[in-house]
Amino acid sequence: MSVRFGILGAGRIGKVHARAVAATTGAALVAVSDPMEAAAKEVARDYGCAIRSIDEIAAAGDIDAVVICTPTDTHADLIEKFVRAGKHVFCEKPVDLDVARVKAALATVKAEGGTLMVGFNRRFDPDFMALKSAIDAGRVGEVEMITITSRDPGAPPADYIKVSGGIFRDMTIHDFDVARWLLGEEVETVYAAASVLTDPKIGELGDYDSATVVLRTASGKQCTISNSRRASYGYDQRIEVLGSKGLVSARNTHEANIELADGAGFSRPPLLNFFMTRYTAAYANEIAAFCKAVADCAPTPTTGEDGLKALELAEAALTSARTGAVVKVG
Amino acid sequence: MSVRFGILGAGRIGKVHARAVAATTGAALVAVSDPMEAAAKEVARDYGCAIRSIDEIAAAGDIDAVVICTPTDTHADLIEKFVRAGKHVFCEKPVDLDVARVKAALATVKAEGGTLMVGFNRRFDPDFMALKSAIDAGRVGEVEMITITSRDPGAPPADYIKVSGGIFRDMTIHDFDVARWLLGEEVETVYAAASVLTDPKIGELGDYDSATVVLRTASGKQCTISNSRRASYGYDQRIEVLGSKGLVSARNTHEANIELADGAGFSRPPLLNFFMTRYTAAYANEIAAFCKAVADCAPTPTTGEDGLKALELAEAALTSARTGAVVKVG
Amino acid sequence: MSVRFGILGAGRIGKVHARAVAATTGAALVAVSDPMEAAAKEVARDYGCAIRSIDEIAAAGDIDAVVICTPTDTHADLIEKFVRAGKHVFCEKPVDLDVARVKAALATVKAEGGTLMVGFNRRFDPDFMALKSAIDAGRVGEVEMITITSRDPGAPPADYIKVSGGIFRDMTIHDFDVARWLLGEEVETVYAAASVLTDPKIGELGDYDSATVVLRTASGKQCTISNSRRASYGYDQRIEVLGSKGLVSARNTHEANIELADGAGFSRPPLLNFFMTRYTAAYANEIAAFCKAVADCAPTPTTGEDGLKALELAEAALTSARTGAVVKVG
Amino acid sequence: MSVRFGILGAGRIGKVHARAVAATTGAALVAVSDPMEAAAKEVARDYGCAIRSIDEIAAAGDIDAVVICTPTDTHADLIEKFVRAGKHVFCEKPVDLDVARVKAALATVKAEGGTLMVGFNRRFDPDFMALKSAIDAGRVGEVEMITITSRDPGAPPADYIKVSGGIFRDMTIHDFDVARWLLGEEVETVYAAASVLTDPKIGELGDYDSATVVLRTASGKQCTISNSRRASYGYDQRIEVLGSKGLVSARNTHEANIELADGAGFSRPPLLNFFMTRYTAAYANEIAAFCKAVADCAPTPTTGEDGLKALELAEAALTSARTGAVVKVG
Repeated sequence: MSVRFGILGAGRIGKVHARAVAATTGAALVAVSDPMEAAAKEVARDYGCAIRSIDEIAAAGDIDAVVICTPTDTHADLIEKFVRAGKHVFCEKPVDLDVARVKAALATVKAEGGTLMVGFNRRFDPDFMALKSAIDAGRVGEVEMITITSRDPGAPPADYIKVSGGIFRDMTIHDFDVARWLLGEEVETVYAAASVLTDPKIGELGDYDSATVVLRTASGKQCTISNSRRASYGYDQRIEVLGSKGLVSARNTHEANIELADGAGFSRPPLLNFFMTRYTAAYANEIAAFCKAVADCAPTPTTGEDGLKALELAEAALTSARTGAVVKVG
Repeated sequence: MSVRFGILGAGRIGKVHARAVAATTGAALVAVSDPMEAAAKEVARDYGCAIRSIDEIAAAGDIDAVVICTPTDTHADLIEKFVRAGKHVFCEKPVDLDVARVKAALATVKAEGGTLMVGFNRRFDPDFMALKSAIDAGRVGEVEMITITSRDPGAPPADYIKVSGGIFRDMTIHDFDVARWLLGEEVETVYAAASVLTDPKIGELGDYDSATVVLRTASGKQCTISNSRRASYGYDQRIEVLGSKGLVSARNTHEANIELADGAGFSRPPLLNFFMTRYTAAYANEIAAFCKAVADCAPTPTTGEDGLKALELAEAALTSARTGAVVKVG
Repeated sequence: MSVRFGILGAGRIGKVHARAVAATTGAALVAVSDPMEAAAKEVARDYGCAIRSIDEIAAAGDIDAVVICTPTDTHADLIEKFVRAGKHVFCEKPVDLDVARVKAALATVKAEGGTLMVGFNRRFDPDFMALKSAIDAGRVGEVEMITITSRDPGAPPADYIKVSGGIFRDMTIHDFDVARWLLGEEVETVYAAASVLTDPKIGELGDYDSATVVLRTASGKQCTISNSRRASYGYDQRIEVLGSKGLVSARNTHEANIELADGAGFSRPPLLNFFMTRYTAAYANEIAAFCKAVADCAPTPTTGEDGLKALELAEAALTSARTGAVVKVG
Repeated sequence: MSVRFGILGAGRIGKVHARAVAATTGAALVAVSDPMEAAAKEVARDYGCAIRSIDEIAAAGDIDAVVICTPTDTHADLIEKFVRAGKHVFCEKPVDLDVARVKAALATVKAEGGTLMVGFNRRFDPDFMALKSAIDAGRVGEVEMITITSRDPGAPPADYIKVSGGIFRDMTIHDFDVARWLLGEEVETVYAAASVLTDPKIGELGDYDSATVVLRTASGKQCTISNSRRASYGYDQRIEVLGSKGLVSARNTHEANIELADGAGFSRPPLLNFFMTRYTAAYANEIAAFCKAVADCAPTPTTGEDGLKALELAEAALTSARTGAVVKVG
């Protein structure tokens, strides 16, 4: 039997998840909710589902699970509302920008015995999954040093930056989750060198646009994250893992797999430029994984706890960047 | 308004096209037909369409177009039946293994003023399209020499080989179409060196498993096709085009975009191994292109004529391989 | 003890060999000869050797071996003169443009019990050697299909083309030798499609600038050679060998191993543009191999017979190109 | 006129420099000195130079310049001795392991008006030079973030580690120099996370084998260095520079430029495994550059000051690794 879904929020990311639900075997898209009527109607028309209010979806007997794609400041409230209503919850990252609020929400989830999966889509990217499989299969031996290169083609608008929580909570948070996923042990210290190099306006908003973060675990494993809000050549998303027996790397995805050679040299197209295009398969895979976990009554592959841990690393990085000192976590 | 489809044949390739129709904006899958009840039921269930007989589909007022995915020896008859019934026809390659029968069918299509698109999916592969765009944009200047490498991971079963029409009509036919598409002028002479190198049973069936074909146009452009029924490293599908100003190449697609390095060297996964996986996007794109042509009352991007020309090159290659001589075409 | 060398001819290729001899452990450059005094002086000065006449070198007691780098039409005479003088002979390709003259010269070498190595430098390129080693180690199983891509950055001057013997004897001859080296059995039929596509003046001289050659052995192995006198992206020198168990390829060498990424895409520098730069190591290795064979009284790795066989393939290709028919060899 | 050289020290690196001097146009190798008679004799024989004592070379009227390839603890003394003797000095890195001693030596060089070039060979690697040229040509705009990956195939012997000054002074020192060369401004803070992950014996000697170093300049540029004493796949030497307009990378050098494809995937040979093989051209180029500077009475491309600055960064990194804190420099 299918898992029956409601989608909360029909914006850009809501549409991505609506399509994923519609395309997933074992999932059915029953309803969508959005205060912007036009957005809700578009999803309803494209996928043949009903338009309902948040409360109607919470009360609905024909809905098993919800995907929360609303603005960040509503996430924690909605998580609590829907686990109390007995729905399985998939929530886009982050749970909240405030660690205390996240902890309170997770406590509610736990008290209600609810399901909460946080949308760390990169764990579901086919190339990153292949890299993880190689590690798990022992192909590189014991993990020692990780390098994550994660650069956006361009900065988001100022209005978004203001409410984003800053580069570490908004952008690096994905890399923190990937780091935890691959390191296999928790981080002990965080160092972040952060600067404003691409656009002074970002600095005026109190944020950074260029950051190098080093995570160190108790056993001495090291992970470097290299972030920039500007990469003229596209959305740069790479991972390298050095282990005792070898190195495994996941490489970038270009717009097309062609090469042109002439007097100027050999050239390949830029990288896919947009996170939704780059991670199309990842978004589909994470909904499928959530759906399978719900259907099997099994734990979800990512949890609220993962959301909390990544946020704590973001807090530590921010403190380090501001103070210039190394910060202990946990 | 949507183009309403019937799918004829619910086998392996029929399912691919059913999924493509279902996923295409502007297309609706209305009915499927297959003498194997189980196959038809599977498609009907997966995509929520009706099961009907061939005749019912031909007579249906709610169907605008059909996709012919039945065995090769039925293609020509069905094309004629359905253009007479006023339906737009998309037919999997080949129209027929016999040139005269193809010509007769095309004559019927013409007489009826019908639409016939032949399924040369490779023209719709995103990488090959990017290569073609680069050529059309003048990036390599005038096309001079083309190299097409096209190798299957393994040979099909003997039962299939028997009815396939042989390697040139079954496998190289795609490469002949790609060659014509890229050369921009018709082929004048064909030379084919063909051998049985991978499995003597293929020779016992009167077929070849390894072939090198050279096409030459009137102006002296040269195209080489390299085929094998065995490629241990996956489904090898590459194109290289040398022009007066440069070279453009479309490269292979690997199972994942990762690289592993250890004492044995640097390794990447094998190529995608199966034509349906390799050409997933191409199959979707060709149905979308057909649909758009029908909706716009515009010519289809590939035609019955393309099917005929490719088949004539296959005939010429077979003659060349058997006689050891160069063969003129046209 | 060192092998003591005389260099005959101090032109472009003579200098390459002079440097190779000077740098080879176990070789000593004793004398150089060239009717152009300035050229001879330059070599004499750079490597501290004497200037002598051809006859003096032939008569010299302190010279064991000669490297013939004079114009092609003198090669056969000099080979005969120097084997008669008891010198070991390394001769740049070709022995002669005329098959009968080559055979006569080889007969003399045989009658005198002389040593003749013909300069097929590509067999000594480190990457091609690594490819050959992989084949010999059984890494690709039985060799089935070979693709040699061999394109010059630009055509030689008209004056050179006139005396070159044409593209097959001048340029493809190297590819014929590589083909024989890798196929492991002799060629039975040759087909060549040749055109004038890059410059009509080449056609006016009776030559071709673009050629596709297919070689076929008795057992059905196939080798394709793709030649052009124009490659805007540099000196294109690649080999691919498909075997029963896999594929091995030798790739091109770029000017530098860097990559630049920006909004226009990812680009690498053009290929090394000049055969002497591309094959620097190969020229050094072939002289070292000759020297070692002489010192060990062992057969040379390439012989006059190899020169003859490659020339016969060139003749067959020319006949095929001119007649449009497939040509049998041997 | 040639620059006439004496080589001090005929060990492994002394031989590399002897060969470089012998092969450099405009350089002449006059004498070698080494307390190990056999080593000196080998160089004398291979390059036809004299064997002399250190004092004889210092006093020699036929020697203009020396290359110091003796053990590290003799470098500073020899630098002082030879600039006082009026010789131009090329000294292998480091000048000394002690910052004060380096400063004293540089003061002597300055007082004597002498020439001192320190052997930071990587600046002379053709690929790194091409990367630097691309930066200097403005191809990536303003430099923002640098990633240097520098990993040895395996750790040196314990006896060497004991006198090496530790990973930062021995191995990272090259990366510090490359960082300074590319950053274009001095480093302000250093953070180093260092661990013992590959071999506990290295820890017992008080050293580290795995380190991540982050350098930050006053304007906020960031440089990450990733070091390991173990890389199963060969000598890993890569640089990536992100600028305001793009990214430029220098890639690794493999044993051969071939690729093998079979059922296990696509594989290339490991990296060149040994620093002398990897940097053969760099060693030759740096001697040629020294020679040219001497002949032109021009400043050398690297100086004693560069040696000092790199050592200061090494000291700072060591302090950071030991204390876990970020360290200010300068």
